Amino acid sequence: MKLVSFSNQVDATIRPGLVQQEAVLDITKASALLRLTVPDSIQGIIEQYATVKESLQAIAQAAEQGKLGEASYPLNDVTLAAPIPRPRKNVMCLAVNYTEHARETAALRDHGGEPPTQPVMFTKAPTTVNSPYGEIVIDPAVSTKIDWEVELGVIMGKAGKNIHEEDAMQYVFGYTVLNDVTARDLQSRHKQFFKGKSLDGSCPMGPWIITADEINDPHNLSLRLLVNGEIKQDGNTRQMIFSIPDMIATLSLGMTLEPGDIIATGTPSGVGFSRVPPEFLQPGDVMESEIEGIGTLRNPIVASA
Amino acid sequence: MKLVSFSNQVDATIRPGLVQQEAVLDITKASALLRLTVPDSIQGIIEQYATVKESLQAIAQAAEQGKLGEASYPLNDVTLAAPIPRPRKNVMCLAVNYTEHARETAALRDHGGEPPTQPVMFTKAPTTVNSPYGEIVIDPAVSTKIDWEVELGVIMGKAGKNIHEEDAMQYVFGYTVLNDVTARDLQSRHKQFFKGKSLDGSCPMGPWIITADEINDPHNLSLRLLVNGEIKQDGNTRQMIFSIPDMIATLSLGMTLEPGDIIATGTPSGVGFSRVPPEFLQPGDVMESEIEGIGTLRNPIVASA
Repeated sequence: MKLVSFSNQVDATIRPGLVQQEAVLDITKASALLRLTVPDSIQGIIEQYATVKESLQAIAQAAEQGKLGEASYPLNDVTLAAPIPRPRKNVMCLAVNYTEHARETAALRDHGGEPPTQPVMFTKAPTTVNSPYGEIVIDPAVSTKIDWEVELGVIMGKAGKNIHEEDAMQYVFGYTVLNDVTARDLQSRHKQFFKGKSLDGSCPMGPWIITADEINDPHNLSLRLLVNGEIKQDGNTRQMIFSIPDMIATLSLGMTLEPGDIIATGTPSGVGFSRVPPEFLQPGDVMESEIEGIGTLRNPIVASA
Repeated sequence: MKLVSFSNQVDATIRPGLVQQEAVLDITKASALLRLTVPDSIQGIIEQYATVKESLQAIAQAAEQGKLGEASYPLNDVTLAAPIPRPRKNVMCLAVNYTEHARETAALRDHGGEPPTQPVMFTKAPTTVNSPYGEIVIDPAVSTKIDWEVELGVIMGKAGKNIHEEDAMQYVFGYTVLNDVTARDLQSRHKQFFKGKSLDGSCPMGPWIITADEINDPHNLSLRLLVNGEIKQDGNTRQMIFSIPDMIATLSLGMTLEPGDIIATGTPSGVGFSRVPPEFLQPGDVMESEIEGIGTLRNPIVASA
């Protein structure tokens, strides 16, 4: 299942939708037509998925039978928000989780380029969340070194603490594409990463959450980052240093993970600041973040007014 | 005004209250009696304070005139939650913001003990929030190095971005006491501080939020930490390296701060891990965090079941 948060010209309210081929089914409208009860947000749907799943399947089925015409919109006619437009806590992120990325950042960080022996984790504020095709606004008074980081996003489905690695995948609701846009100057200036990682709009996400059952192997997905059509990052999630079960086990040690929690799993090599010469995003650029079998974010870079 | 979140034997719902001397006024009940409309949470009250303030004053006045007997409970008879039991994002924290604390941590960190030239910021998950008298649960399978950090908490009242230092205090709603309880082993192991700072229950907070108008000078408050009655930290907020306006300006650069956001302003010297020999909290200990003119947290340390 592909789940989105969307609005359109009919209704500016951001609401949950189900993507079928090139159409978006308005879950709220469809559930009213079919007399089903479904929460009015993706966060709510994730929290109640065990009971809601059947209703969503019934909606999908009714649509396939052509019964939900008035609750269906062409995908191109809706405006997609991030699938979880306002997470209930900061996005949790893995730093240096790809070997080549560890190596390329060595010269500019206080490490020798060896992969970390333990996961390194920081957060991005909920105000960073941006829509899949939203503008990334650059204000030179804030940062002149805005960099890209395409990442696989893991969406948690169930609450859990001290989760064992071998059980961890049962807690995953689904996957999304995200970009951990980073202000390199602020990241360096403030030592801990939070500030440089938390500028408004610096976490475009989506276009949808694809449920875990539809991803055969999340540790074998190619992911690429393009700027103005030119490939800058080209990796595969199999290159992760710490696997998804490993990071869920580590994060949940003594800390409850909750439904709707978002984990950004780290970025492969090819980021801008470690290139020679360094490259940063500029107004007029278009940044594309794509993951095989999930989708593509397309974010124009614009100058602040 | 002193604002709390509380429950009691009459009603287990956590709801907002107003502390008057040794009593708590049930804001929801009082506003119904006086036919006023007030949000049912401290978060809501902060967000709508401009319009709600008068209603709260009317409630306080009616109580002083003895009109709200049935909406008033002895403070000792209620159970206090953290004033904001579930913040809408992670708590934002200043690291090494007291000169002596910078010095005492030098030997154990990758710095020479000089105070930082720029604020260093990290976050604690919303699931860390604990009540002012709540238990701190220690699980030796998670951490054996649980340490204390008494801190002044700043509660934001208005949304703002790129806030100038000279305007910053207008954005402050009030103050609270908090303890940035830290798992030193996890903090070191994972490099970035998020993991070691985010164990469940590791941010006791309260007992109340005192509104900014009742604190004459937030940069001149003594703050102390006691373990089993013995003073371990004894500082004053005037020793902060970065002032409250400075941290608000720095945090809000390119990042929108929102009503109800919580900023932990750093801890003075005297933490456990830099003592000789190092000291950590143990089951059976009682940790008290007190700030002059605000109040005292009292948290028993217990072993996990």
